[in-house]
Amino acid sequence: MSAVGSQAGGAFTPPAEYVEALTELVVGIGANIQPGQVVGITMQAGQEAITRAVAEAAYARGAKYVDVWLFDVYLKHSRLKHADRDTLDYVPRWVRERMLQLGEMNAARISFQGPPAPTLMDDIDTDRLGLDMMPRLRESIEVTMKQQTNWTIVPWPNQDWATMVHPDLPEADAYKKLWEEIAYVCRLNEENPTAAWEARLKTLEDSAARLTEMRLDALHFVGPGTDLTVGLLPSSRWMAGRMDTVKGIEYCANLPTEEVFTAPDPDRADGYVRATKPLLIPGSARIEGLTVRFEGGRAVELNADKGAEILRGMAARDDGACRLGEVALVDRESRIGQSGTVFSDILLDENSASHIALGSAYPFSVESAQDKARANVSQIHIDFMIGSSEVAVDGLRADGSAVPLLRDGVWQV
Amino acid sequence: MSAVGSQAGGAFTPPAEYVEALTELVVGIGANIQPGQVVGITMQAGQEAITRAVAEAAYARGAKYVDVWLFDVYLKHSRLKHADRDTLDYVPRWVRERMLQLGEMNAARISFQGPPAPTLMDDIDTDRLGLDMMPRLRESIEVTMKQQTNWTIVPWPNQDWATMVHPDLPEADAYKKLWEEIAYVCRLNEENPTAAWEARLKTLEDSAARLTEMRLDALHFVGPGTDLTVGLLPSSRWMAGRMDTVKGIEYCANLPTEEVFTAPDPDRADGYVRATKPLLIPGSARIEGLTVRFEGGRAVELNADKGAEILRGMAARDDGACRLGEVALVDRESRIGQSGTVFSDILLDENSASHIALGSAYPFSVESAQDKARANVSQIHIDFMIGSSEVAVDGLRADGSAVPLLRDGVWQV
Repeated sequence: MSAVGSQAGGAFTPPAEYVEALTELVVGIGANIQPGQVVGITMQAGQEAITRAVAEAAYARGAKYVDVWLFDVYLKHSRLKHADRDTLDYVPRWVRERMLQLGEMNAARISFQGPPAPTLMDDIDTDRLGLDMMPRLRESIEVTMKQQTNWTIVPWPNQDWATMVHPDLPEADAYKKLWEEIAYVCRLNEENPTAAWEARLKTLEDSAARLTEMRLDALHFVGPGTDLTVGLLPSSRWMAGRMDTVKGIEYCANLPTEEVFTAPDPDRADGYVRATKPLLIPGSARIEGLTVRFEGGRAVELNADKGAEILRGMAARDDGACRLGEVALVDRESRIGQSGTVFSDILLDENSASHIALGSAYPFSVESAQDKARANVSQIHIDFMIGSSEVAVDGLRADGSAVPLLRDGVWQV
Repeated sequence: MSAVGSQAGGAFTPPAEYVEALTELVVGIGANIQPGQVVGITMQAGQEAITRAVAEAAYARGAKYVDVWLFDVYLKHSRLKHADRDTLDYVPRWVRERMLQLGEMNAARISFQGPPAPTLMDDIDTDRLGLDMMPRLRESIEVTMKQQTNWTIVPWPNQDWATMVHPDLPEADAYKKLWEEIAYVCRLNEENPTAAWEARLKTLEDSAARLTEMRLDALHFVGPGTDLTVGLLPSSRWMAGRMDTVKGIEYCANLPTEEVFTAPDPDRADGYVRATKPLLIPGSARIEGLTVRFEGGRAVELNADKGAEILRGMAARDDGACRLGEVALVDRESRIGQSGTVFSDILLDENSASHIALGSAYPFSVESAQDKARANVSQIHIDFMIGSSEVAVDGLRADGSAVPLLRDGVWQV
């Protein structure tokens, strides 16, 4: 077994202690694998080493079966190049059923982030690109929203990604640098990464609790190209760090995580916003220079320097796809924000800056049954970054008065 | 995309013209992919390059969707090492459903042969090994027997396999030599590999037709350690080369193929037989020095120098698992037999020598409805080689008279 997968390449080999620490975070504080659980892994080519390490650790913790679903972006490229347009939204029934069955059996779910071959789709017509949503499945949104599974996503560097993030470095150096950055933001370089995450998660959970107590009516973002008010629901609950499944298993869905987030009122978003980072939709496209105008909760204008059609296609997929399902705040204590690196990967970039998401809301981020019924529903959930040190964030109370929340990336509360 | 997968390694890169020729055989004369078909591929780590090439060629021929199921022997090893014994026969429902759905939709199916990491399972208790049958699925036997899908299996060399076959050569040389052997036996080195296979398949199909016309009552194998009579059914039909699906799509299930085969009478096998080659059960074990005694069609004694327990476990899986479902004759025109190499891979080795199989019969290798009802049924189908230049094969007529069929590997009819 090679230490790195087929796409990793380069002369640099990930230090074994980092791979070991990441594996321990995945099966431990991340997905929190339970004895007797089935574990569903989504894997891409080049992720063999971490998949095998995680499977070994999962079985050692008592997992019943580790099931791998392979998603390969090269196969998707061949499909988008040749297949009939009318078939591009086809998903085999068993692929959908796998996800639903993982939910029904309260399985654990794991995936590894790291965009492979970022320029591969450049020769595909943009009007075809948005039609094949895989590896996204509407069933995974459903399973996630029902809190059926304990799940986590962690990054796993590959050479293509490293070269995209650090185009000016020689290949092996870029790969080494990306690994060092990932080790830093994932706290793999701490003496006890699990303890380091427990401390950080506690801080985030405390911030979320303070925001929930304020019972804000709305958030107001103001900065270059941005003047946006996002309404909240009466019982919007701010979340951070760990969550529980319906079976009471605590897990941490993203590692790293640096955000506090809640579900907005899908009928109240007004104004305009300019994305502060590019957005990479895995297996589809890179969206740059995104600007969005909202009216009464709906994204009524979606423009971009690049990739606007893709996002417009996704936002038209269903009724909820053009409304907000999440608003998240990230302060400058985030190691990802501190690194200054644009990773062009949503797991990392969304934790570098405040962001909003088109599409489905997490029902557990509202408290009342009435608000759960109002929170946004969609097949999609697409985060994009709107925060920076230049964007001020205020909380608005029901009486219209404002409370400063973030200035220059620093918490004011 | 790397030219060879993560397990391939070595300094030798498979010549692009061989990969191209193999790809063309797979989607052409092999699986014969039709426009609009779904294509199910079973892939192992290290087979990314051929999987992507085949997917591209399949989509170019009009395939609707190419679905990959990853089987990884390292994950299986972790499972066998740690998981509860009682769970080792667990197969997720969606894995079974995938196979059944491929059958129902008359999909194409493709897999690549090449044993990875042949010694990986050496530290697993042999009594656990036979419990996890994957990647074998009883559903794939069912789909195959119903002729629902056009399918093919081809070899794809990897470094571990090359090192096992040629342990005395340096790694890269072993890998290069295995590739040259595969190119020879798959006729990739011919100017027109498809035309070369069409000619060879015609010869095999003619031999099969001659044998069917003889309406033999039984076959008699005599050689060192072997004196075995295998009864045939009244309408046993000898098959070779190409077959048709229920939808009338012609395909060639194995490339290379050098055998003519039929379904025996499951109640009439008597005598003893010594395997002439080792048998590698993928993801389980290597069975060496196998001897079997049959009585009234049943394998009543199964012994081996190594791995007997595995085979005994499989032969006890159901009522048909200890009876014969196939008898096949291979003459010395076989390029595989000529190469003199023991590939320790069933796709190749079964085409080097005459063989029999425990388990399910191919219903299309008998003609009458009455015989179809009598042909053997089982979840397993395990071929093992019993032929060599020292084993004489006679046909026995209903009146008891003998007709020499093979002497010193040469057809006598």
